[in-house]
Amino acid sequence: MIAFVSRAPQAEQEHWMSTLACAMPEETIVSFDDLSDAQKNTCELAIVANPDPLALQALPQLKWVHSVWAGVERMVMELGKPSFSIVRLVDPELAKTMSEAVLAWSLFLHREMFAYQQQQANSEWLPRPMVRAKDRRIGILGLGELGKASAMRLKENGFDVRGWSRNPKELQGISCFDGEKGLYELLQQSDILVCLLPLTKQTTGLLNQATLACLPERATIINFARGAIIDDVSLLTALDQQVAHAVLDVFSQEPLPKDHPYWQHPRVSVLPHISAPTHPESASQIVAANIRGYREKGEIPPAVDIEIGY
Amino acid sequence: MIAFVSRAPQAEQEHWMSTLACAMPEETIVSFDDLSDAQKNTCELAIVANPDPLALQALPQLKWVHSVWAGVERMVMELGKPSFSIVRLVDPELAKTMSEAVLAWSLFLHREMFAYQQQQANSEWLPRPMVRAKDRRIGILGLGELGKASAMRLKENGFDVRGWSRNPKELQGISCFDGEKGLYELLQQSDILVCLLPLTKQTTGLLNQATLACLPERATIINFARGAIIDDVSLLTALDQQVAHAVLDVFSQEPLPKDHPYWQHPRVSVLPHISAPTHPESASQIVAANIRGYREKGEIPPAVDIEIGY
Repeated sequence: MIAFVSRAPQAEQEHWMSTLACAMPEETIVSFDDLSDAQKNTCELAIVANPDPLALQALPQLKWVHSVWAGVERMVMELGKPSFSIVRLVDPELAKTMSEAVLAWSLFLHREMFAYQQQQANSEWLPRPMVRAKDRRIGILGLGELGKASAMRLKENGFDVRGWSRNPKELQGISCFDGEKGLYELLQQSDILVCLLPLTKQTTGLLNQATLACLPERATIINFARGAIIDDVSLLTALDQQVAHAVLDVFSQEPLPKDHPYWQHPRVSVLPHISAPTHPESASQIVAANIRGYREKGEIPPAVDIEIGY
Repeated sequence: MIAFVSRAPQAEQEHWMSTLACAMPEETIVSFDDLSDAQKNTCELAIVANPDPLALQALPQLKWVHSVWAGVERMVMELGKPSFSIVRLVDPELAKTMSEAVLAWSLFLHREMFAYQQQQANSEWLPRPMVRAKDRRIGILGLGELGKASAMRLKENGFDVRGWSRNPKELQGISCFDGEKGLYELLQQSDILVCLLPLTKQTTGLLNQATLACLPERATIINFARGAIIDDVSLLTALDQQVAHAVLDVFSQEPLPKDHPYWQHPRVSVLPHISAPTHPESASQIVAANIRGYREKGEIPPAVDIEIGY
């Protein structure tokens, strides 16, 4: 028996339950609210989608939980140091969708669509100098599954790509930077800066007045990770200085409040957290495969490191 | 000696002359205005950039002209049946730039950026259903150098691509249609329709009320070829019906007149003919190589078929 623990809206919970059931018909999946006391006292495994931490604490035998999402920072923050392991979703389909979003919006910035739209609003016919993709430097913050897939996709489409991660990494055809010194180097070389970092203590407010000031003239920014990685006041200031445009899909508060200055800012594109939506069918297949592996070999898939937060 | 014949602005002419001279230092390139009568009477070869037809008629010994541009429909129209051959630019760099533009704006439409921008204008937070690239059908009209490169690039990025050309063609992984019946089939299957046809008698007004009516619900259109291929009145009507958005880079009259309804139309993106600007350095290298081949072997490169117009 597997518990399903979620604070998502009821319709979404039901969609997840039925999709998960189709992906692993050999398992019995029970919603937390329907668990008997006996079941609660013996449950070793849960599938979670934004779970209530109190619900998880009510499962004393829990060995591990599998999140259906890639981002687990809220769960890690709310749970403190849990006695069970947290496995997050690593979905190649998600990486494909995210790399498509990164490519789409990088091309939006590379081809200066934002500037042409402004010109169109003024009925202005003005060809702008063309920059070749090989001369457009794109810097990617975060070289996890999503960052790697995005870097490769941009490279395949002719861009001059570099990447930064906390620890040293190697990627063919991509200049890789790491550590604090490496961060400043990457920022100085990024005409387009793409943020795909996990939200941790270290990355909260990583893009602030000091770091944004390192970006070159007319740099542009894409944030498809988590809102709190950018300090909003610093970004709004930078948009009046050397930053030409920002594409933001994530915000410290979502939905973005109606009166937030981003909504009507002429140099900000606001997206409603849609860069790479989880695909329940594909995610359920991956969760099912991980659970089957556990049933057969007793091995829990690689878990989140609570100290570093992902 | 090679004549350079152009009605382009003086600065642009001078840039072409110096770039061409660098690419073929072994040749003497003389601007038409600087030719002596003796030179005019013996000149066999000209490089042209929107040439005055009267100037070309003043060169009685002309064997062939090399255009620095890919599109030669204006020259063909103005010259009638010239006694010399017309060679147009076939630049792989141009095909790369065009395929990038097609990919960029296909992603703009695929990811419904136009709809998210409208929502942002209304401070509206509303995720839209995600369509996967493999479920997005893109139809390409015209499978010449630019159409082929664009079809392959879209295919590489996961889209469901098909193409149409006047005569039967084969392209790996792309469903190819031809002829009138094939055109209607392609239109019915195109969520995004990309026009990369040459402008000829047959393609003028090809996208009209009857053909646009074949497109599926919420279809979108990209025209990166020539303005006159689309009948503007029919497109404006279709934009009130099943066509959700049009990206137009080319127009029957350029620059697009200030009072044209496209400028402020909420479902039209107007671009100032920038999808694939000719790169003088790269174009000059190709012209130089063709002229060297001619000097060595006496062979004129494949010329435009005046009857069909490209």
